[in-house]
Amino acid sequence: MTHNPVETPAKTPVTLLGLGAMGAALGRAWLAAGHPLTVWNRTAARAEALAAEGATVAATAAEAVAANRLVVVCLLDDASVEQALADAELTGKDVVNLVTGTPAQARSRAAWAAERGARYLDGGIMAVPPMIGVPAAGPYVFYSGSAALFDEHRTTLAAPADTRYVGEDAGHAALHDVALLSAMYGMFAGLTHAFALIRDETVAPTDLAPLITDWLTTMTAAVPDTARRLESGDYTTGVVSNLAMQAAGRHTLLGTAQEQGVSPELLTPLFHLMQRRLATGSPDEDLTGLVDLLRQGDR
Amino acid sequence: MTHNPVETPAKTPVTLLGLGAMGAALGRAWLAAGHPLTVWNRTAARAEALAAEGATVAATAAEAVAANRLVVVCLLDDASVEQALADAELTGKDVVNLVTGTPAQARSRAAWAAERGARYLDGGIMAVPPMIGVPAAGPYVFYSGSAALFDEHRTTLAAPADTRYVGEDAGHAALHDVALLSAMYGMFAGLTHAFALIRDETVAPTDLAPLITDWLTTMTAAVPDTARRLESGDYTTGVVSNLAMQAAGRHTLLGTAQEQGVSPELLTPLFHLMQRRLATGSPDEDLTGLVDLLRQGDR
Repeated sequence: MTHNPVETPAKTPVTLLGLGAMGAALGRAWLAAGHPLTVWNRTAARAEALAAEGATVAATAAEAVAANRLVVVCLLDDASVEQALADAELTGKDVVNLVTGTPAQARSRAAWAAERGARYLDGGIMAVPPMIGVPAAGPYVFYSGSAALFDEHRTTLAAPADTRYVGEDAGHAALHDVALLSAMYGMFAGLTHAFALIRDETVAPTDLAPLITDWLTTMTAAVPDTARRLESGDYTTGVVSNLAMQAAGRHTLLGTAQEQGVSPELLTPLFHLMQRRLATGSPDEDLTGLVDLLRQGDR
Repeated sequence: MTHNPVETPAKTPVTLLGLGAMGAALGRAWLAAGHPLTVWNRTAARAEALAAEGATVAATAAEAVAANRLVVVCLLDDASVEQALADAELTGKDVVNLVTGTPAQARSRAAWAAERGARYLDGGIMAVPPMIGVPAAGPYVFYSGSAALFDEHRTTLAAPADTRYVGEDAGHAALHDVALLSAMYGMFAGLTHAFALIRDETVAPTDLAPLITDWLTTMTAAVPDTARRLESGDYTTGVVSNLAMQAAGRHTLLGTAQEQGVSPELLTPLFHLMQRRLATGSPDEDLTGLVDLLRQGDR
């Protein structure tokens, strides 16, 4: 018997700047997937653990950038990107910026990269570090900016987490990221209020929890409903619980909070918005009109 | 061949007070399940449609109450219960109060019923009228108060919607109801903010919607986590995104809102709460400590 050696295509080498918890998790995922990895971190000690796992440690960010075409940035904030890459030669590089920021920061950074001759992709990571490299945990990254860069490197980018490309506008990955986080923090505010209501009662939080989870999961039906109404402009057809009824319901919700000694501060802004909308809109709408009211240009 | 006639046990007759959208839906469900039904509504016209479907219409609430032992109340609010039942003889009756109210209102109404010689069960309906009598829609009702009443009538009560008994404290059905609705309104506030962020962008709401739904569904993992931490009192072990990191994240979230012309009013109260907790608690906690902070006795 003869062995037919199968030639494994070489994995794209990656340069990674920034080895905080997220950067280190990304680096380990690329090493595990067989990608040559060059790393740099402002505090050199953090690079040692990754060096032991096979990464090459660069002495400066500029040296790390020089090593490979694909440069992934996972630093603290937008200002540290500017600072770390001040002396780096970016011409011909493919810069993937995973630093958390606003859409405007991403667009500015895209222009900055273009001026320096680099292709640019911005990313918003929808995961915490322990989820990186664990497909079952469902981690993914929104990407926006250069479609050419994304297409060329999508396999490499997919090693640590699934990828979702959301368009050429470099700001749209951050926009998607922030939109999802904002929706989540609203939900967290609701949870905080709900658990505060039962804190002094004989109701066990772990008994209430599955009821909340099931109810919220059912109520996510409001998400596609709201989206469809925003697109059609029809906020009234088929509405079951209308704005007037829901606004009236505040008496029971806020009255219960008062009885239970719970500050209503996390819920009152939504009820204020309902009352403002009722003053000008139709009582037969659902809550979709609040989206328009929240945009400050309309007020 | 002989036919063995199977004796069908007679269905428990039900008196129903109040034929708004929810009352009418409940009445139809009992009629459809074969329960003799006596109805009363302040505006008599609303009873006509149900009469055509087989219900007996009583001229007064007192007459309707006299007709059957099981009396289900689905009126507008707590004050209308007092008013409608002022002249009714309640001794020996089983009163099931489905009127939306606070836990304290339910407890007062339970005491009021006991003084009149009736057993009392309070209910919180987790459904809108179109879901009643449609098991696939998942409607259910929280019940609390007399366990004897609930046990005797659980089959009858289950005809319009599934039942979840949450204890002898008559206030606990309302407490569960309000806790779930409060969590939901937090989520709705988050959705409102998220959709407002993209309102002037080329991102289609119906493209964003499934991403939000999936993300929120994943993030409901915070519900059992928070419950376990509240019970253990340990707010720090195993925390990945700690309070300090999440509070710092407000700069990106609120900065994005500002860029997009969206009022931050629905999100700022939660971030204020994070900052207040950070001032006194540990930066290594998750958000569970906000539950304690929201209780006004602790401030």
